[in-house]
Order: sequence, then structure tokens, then C-alpha cells
Amino acid sequence: MRPVAILGIGQTKIDEHWKRSLRDLAGEAIQAALRDAGRDSAEALFVSNMMSGIVNDQNNLGALIADWSGLHGVEAVKIEAACGSGGAAFRAGLMGVASGEMESALVVGVEKMTDRSPHEVTAALAMAADADYEAEAGVSFVGLNALIMRRYMHEHGWKHADFAPFSINAHTNAMHNPYARLHQKITVEDFEKSHMVATPINLLDASPIGDGAAAALLVPAGTLSQCACIVISGSASATDTLAVHSRPEALFLTAAYKSARAAYKMAGVMPEDIEVFELHDAFSIMSALSLEACGFAERGQGPRLGLDNKISPKGRVPICTRGGLKARGHPVGATGVYQIVEVVQQLRGECGETQVDGARTGMAQNIGGSGATIITHILKRE
Amino acid sequence: MRPVAILGIGQTKIDEHWKRSLRDLAGEAIQAALRDAGRDSAEALFVSNMMSGIVNDQNNLGALIADWSGLHGVEAVKIEAACGSGGAAFRAGLMGVASGEMESALVVGVEKMTDRSPHEVTAALAMAADADYEAEAGVSFVGLNALIMRRYMHEHGWKHADFAPFSINAHTNAMHNPYARLHQKITVEDFEKSHMVATPINLLDASPIGDGAAAALLVPAGTLSQCACIVISGSASATDTLAVHSRPEALFLTAAYKSARAAYKMAGVMPEDIEVFELHDAFSIMSALSLEACGFAERGQGPRLGLDNKISPKGRVPICTRGGLKARGHPVGATGVYQIVEVVQQLRGECGETQVDGARTGMAQNIGGSGATIITHILKRE
Repeated sequence: MRPVAILGIGQTKIDEHWKRSLRDLAGEAIQAALRDAGRDSAEALFVSNMMSGIVNDQNNLGALIADWSGLHGVEAVKIEAACGSGGAAFRAGLMGVASGEMESALVVGVEKMTDRSPHEVTAALAMAADADYEAEAGVSFVGLNALIMRRYMHEHGWKHADFAPFSINAHTNAMHNPYARLHQKITVEDFEKSHMVATPINLLDASPIGDGAAAALLVPAGTLSQCACIVISGSASATDTLAVHSRPEALFLTAAYKSARAAYKMAGVMPEDIEVFELHDAFSIMSALSLEACGFAERGQGPRLGLDNKISPKGRVPICTRGGLKARGHPVGATGVYQIVEVVQQLRGECGETQVDGARTGMAQNIGGSGATIITHILKRE
Repeated sequence: MRPVAILGIGQTKIDEHWKRSLRDLAGEAIQAALRDAGRDSAEALFVSNMMSGIVNDQNNLGALIADWSGLHGVEAVKIEAACGSGGAAFRAGLMGVASGEMESALVVGVEKMTDRSPHEVTAALAMAADADYEAEAGVSFVGLNALIMRRYMHEHGWKHADFAPFSINAHTNAMHNPYARLHQKITVEDFEKSHMVATPINLLDASPIGDGAAAALLVPAGTLSQCACIVISGSASATDTLAVHSRPEALFLTAAYKSARAAYKMAGVMPEDIEVFELHDAFSIMSALSLEACGFAERGQGPRLGLDNKISPKGRVPICTRGGLKARGHPVGATGVYQIVEVVQQLRGECGETQVDGARTGMAQNIGGSGATIITHILKRE
């Protein structure tokens, strides 16, 4: 593949944007990315979205958003892999540019999910699980993650409070991110007293949904001056069974292990070379499992990194430096592109209070389903 | 891009498969394509589907189908561009292999839409149009096409019966395709007497929905012996406004013109070099518009090719040689892959009664929305 760089990024604040449409949010992120890149168009548009057909009565987002965003007539398509849609669309855009078929590609992730009732959104989210063998049995998406967390606590002897550092770190970092959904510091006491959602997952273990869009412009790296160039040095995707009960090991993210390992190999790095890691903390348990699968902790020891204060921007393994899914918010189909945008901000040194000093290598990992589709990207500042 | 070839194809019969699941249909097509290719797996899976989230309560089809089909753990993702999903996924698979990122890619198109009531499916199909500015006003997808057809007849002076050859050709050809949904010869009288759906579109102007799956295995062309090698020599995609009323010219498929012209250029051919053309005859009017936009007829003269008997397998511009959307059937998100499979069958000389003699160059064109997203592929037998 020819090397591909990220020339521009853009994002909207994640919120309940009741007065704005899906296309409007996507357009704002796209125009911000184009302005950031100093370009006025791109040859193709890759849209990531999970549930517009279910909650917005709209499919065919490629053509819709291309036209609305001033990219009239360009090639445009939508990619879906549940909550992993953003990472998957970013990888599709990468392959488009890497193949030589196009000289520029915009990737935009967008989700508009707060117009519907919570039970409608809960039903839509359950479509990331196996409809015939999981959802049909009545389990919700948070319910599946609760089963995983409960078993993990039992197997490895952790208390619920041991997961608090993941949420506290995310909320602390989001205070400095103007695009984050939640600007609210939390304590261990808040974490322990929060409303239960599905035992043992309470409200402060779980990421909030939201409306938002994020975008990135990809171009061949060879055409740019080396300074200020953020290159995609690793990219890989892997899957596991969609149904959690079909896996030999429900407490290990095999697809995260596979895709991270492939991305490390492609980038020529080891886990210890990753200076910032935007992981997919849809629930606090997922932070632990991701850190373990990607080689930052031994199996069953993920919470230790939080308890030992290693996950803050000044720690050894900085995660969720802009708030993560937990506090930046989780507009499901857009999340993977937000993660990419945030790693770029870190590598550019634009993160102020939560900047990882001198970061030159960062990783974003996006998950669709309860570990079913996992896409890992490694970015480097050249 | 490095050259990419189609090594294997597979398909299911299109029908009302009430006793079979979406994953089961996809698996059958994938296994048939692998058998055809003499392979037992592929590095990645690109799924095309339009409405599983709406009519099957299931998203995240990539991981679901990969696991079910014996491709456990491979990279897998879903592509959606309404009824153009199949062509779009095929193009994504092409870029994956062409980029060098993978040495093989399976593309499978699947749709399972007959379990729901007709009005539910009608609502789902309307999501290919603009939800806020078309569907919200009450127009259905067939209604949009009816407006286009009525205006076309008015502008160019055609009678409804002038479109009969398109449907008669499709039904005649489908008689010889065991995978086709409809095996029923029709006459001009049948065509004129058929039930009205949305004036002037009647039941025999319109393609039937259905359940089905089709698959193709892509590999780098350089690795194959030149005999029996079907190469993707042209590939392009373009969009137009999603809402028909936003177009300066509602009777010309600008996106078809753009994507066909780009594909011709890439393949180094002219329209007269195309020996078989699997076009997107969702409605008879779309056959006329596609032939015009792709350079086979002057504007407003598409129906003339049918009336002059040029569109049969022995004619100058053979279209819908396996039945087209009209009679092979239109499982919306799968259709684009069926078209590719059928062109491959023609180039291999496997079409029996409807074989185009000695065909070496064929084209497939897939449309999402009423002309909004149009993907064109040109295949050549080397």
C-alpha cells in the first residue's frame, strides 16, 4: 500500500442536538475537516453510521451527505459495523487512497440518536448483538456487557470500585475537551453510588449515547511536506463470533488481540511504543479487556493500570485523553472517527491540559458488538 | 491499482425463503463462490445489505456472516448504498485487494425482506429516498419513479406499451435462469393489462422484491493463469442529489453518465465494446434512462432499443440476460452482486439459451435511490 496521511480533522460537540438534522451535523464536521486541511473538496466520501435506518428513517447516507456537504457528485458510500462503524469506514477510506484509485477521501462518522425514546434506542443498540440467539432471548446490549463484567470480577477477584479509575480518568479528561458531551468531575463515591443499569454495570460504568459527527481527510502521504504530517502507519481489522456465548473465552477480546497485533506489525512498533491509546470504553469493563488484549496488561490485570494511576495523560498508558466514550460521549456510528480525530489532536500537540508530552505514536481502537468487530489504527507524526 | 480478478461466484435462488435466515442465505452463496474458486477461505468479507436493521432486527452483518460462513475471525464489514449496496461492496472489495492490503476478498450481497408485510417493506424502501424532503411528503419509492416515468413519456412522446419490450426481454431470459424468482413468460397484452401500482408504473413495469444472496471471490489477477481469468477492468462510482426534485435534469441519470464514463476510461473501452450489460431495471423507465446515460441511446430514445429488438441476447445491446431485476428478482442489497455474478457467467460462456455469443467484455451497473448512487463495473475475459 502507498502511505496515507491525515491532512485535516473536524468534529461537532456531542450533545442532544434536537434542533439539528443528521445531515447538518455531518456537514459541519466535513466542512471543519476541509478547512483544517485547506482543501475545498475530496474525491470520495466514506460515511460511518449504525442506525439511521432505524432511528432516522433514512438510508443511503453517502449520496445524502455528499450533496448536503458541498461534495455534490462524488463517490460516496456508507460503512456499518455497529459501534465499530467509524473505524471500519476509516479503514475503507485508507484502502481507497492506498489503492491509488483516489487522491483524497473524506471519512465522516455521524449518529443522531437522541430524538427517539430510550427503549427505541436500546432496541436499536441490541442489533449489534445476535438477533436470533441473543436479543431474541431478551438480553440488551448493556446486559451482555454486564454478564461479561460480572464473570470477570468473579474470575479475577476485582470489586466494582476497582473499575472507578477508568470512569474518573475519562470524566477528568473530558473537562478540557469542548466537544465532549459530559463536563462533570466524578469521585469514587459518585461511581459507587450511581444508579444501577444492569448489575454490576451502573450509570457511571456506561458511556452516554449522543448526537455528533467527526471527520478526517485522507491523502497520499508522499504529496505532503514531512513536517506536520500524520501518517497511518498501522491498520487492521478482525472479527469474533457475534454472539458472546459462542466464544471459547468470553473474557478475552480475541479480535482486539488479532487486529492490534497486525497493526503493530504493520507499523513496526510494540505496545510500549504507543504513547496515547484511544480505546473503546463503552463500559468500564471494556477498558480492562482492551488493555489486556492489546498487550498493556496481563489477562485479568487491566484494572491494576487504573488503580496504579498509569492511565492518565501523564501515566505510562494514557487512555481516553479527550474523555473517551464514557465522557466525550458515544454517538455509536461516529465514535470510531472521533477516536481518530483525538489521536491526531494528541500527535499535533493540541490537547492542552490533557496533552501527552511529545506524543509521536498513537493508537485508536474501535469495537462493534461486544467484541465482535475490532478495528485498530496506529498513527505517527513524521 | 494492481489488477484484480474474479476467481469464483455463487448465488442462491431468489424466492420467498420463509424457512431460511439471512445468515443461511449468505452462507450458501459464499460457500458456492469458494467451491467455484477452489478455495476454502478468504482474508476479508465485504457484505452488502440495505435493510437488515429495519426488517431483520440485525446489524453488524460482517461479523455475523463471517462466523456463520466458516470465515471465523476474518476482517468483515457491511457496505450500504440502498439498492446500490452490492456494487458499492464489490468496489470496496476491489480496493481492498488492489491496495495490496489483502490477497483475497469475498463480497456477498444478501437481503431477506419477505418476512415483513408489504407496507413495512415499502416504508423500508422509501429510506433510499430523502426522508425529510421526499418520504416525509408521503411519496413512496415507486411513486418517485412513477413521477419520472410520467414526465419522460410526456417529454419524449412515448406510450406506456413502448416500455413493454424491457419487461418481456427480462421475463423471457429469466426462463433459462434457475436462480430467477419469476419463471413466467409475458406478452404485450399482459404488460398492458397488469395491475396498476403508481400510475403509469404497473406490476409488470416493476421488479419484485425477494430473499437471496450472491457472492464473488476477488484475488490479484497477476497470481492466476491467463486462461479462465475474469478481470475487473473498469470500476467507478458517482452520486447525484438524493432528492429527485433537487436535480436540474430529473430525466437524465447524471451519476450513471459519470460513473460509466469513468469506468470506460479506466477499461479503455467505448460503449460499443460492451457486449453484455446487466443494468438496474428496478422499473422499466430505469432501463431506458440507464441505456441513455451510458451512451447506448440518445436522450429520450431508450425505448427504441427495445422496440427495435436490440436488447435480447442476440441483439446489439443485450441487457438483463439472466432476467434482470424485473424477473430474476430484486433482493435490494444483494442485487449488485447478482449483476456481477451474471456478467461473469456470460464471460465464461455458461448462459446456455441466453448466452451472448463470444462475449469477452461485460458491464454491470447498480443504482441506489432514484439515480442517487450509481456504481459501474466493466469485466473482461482475458
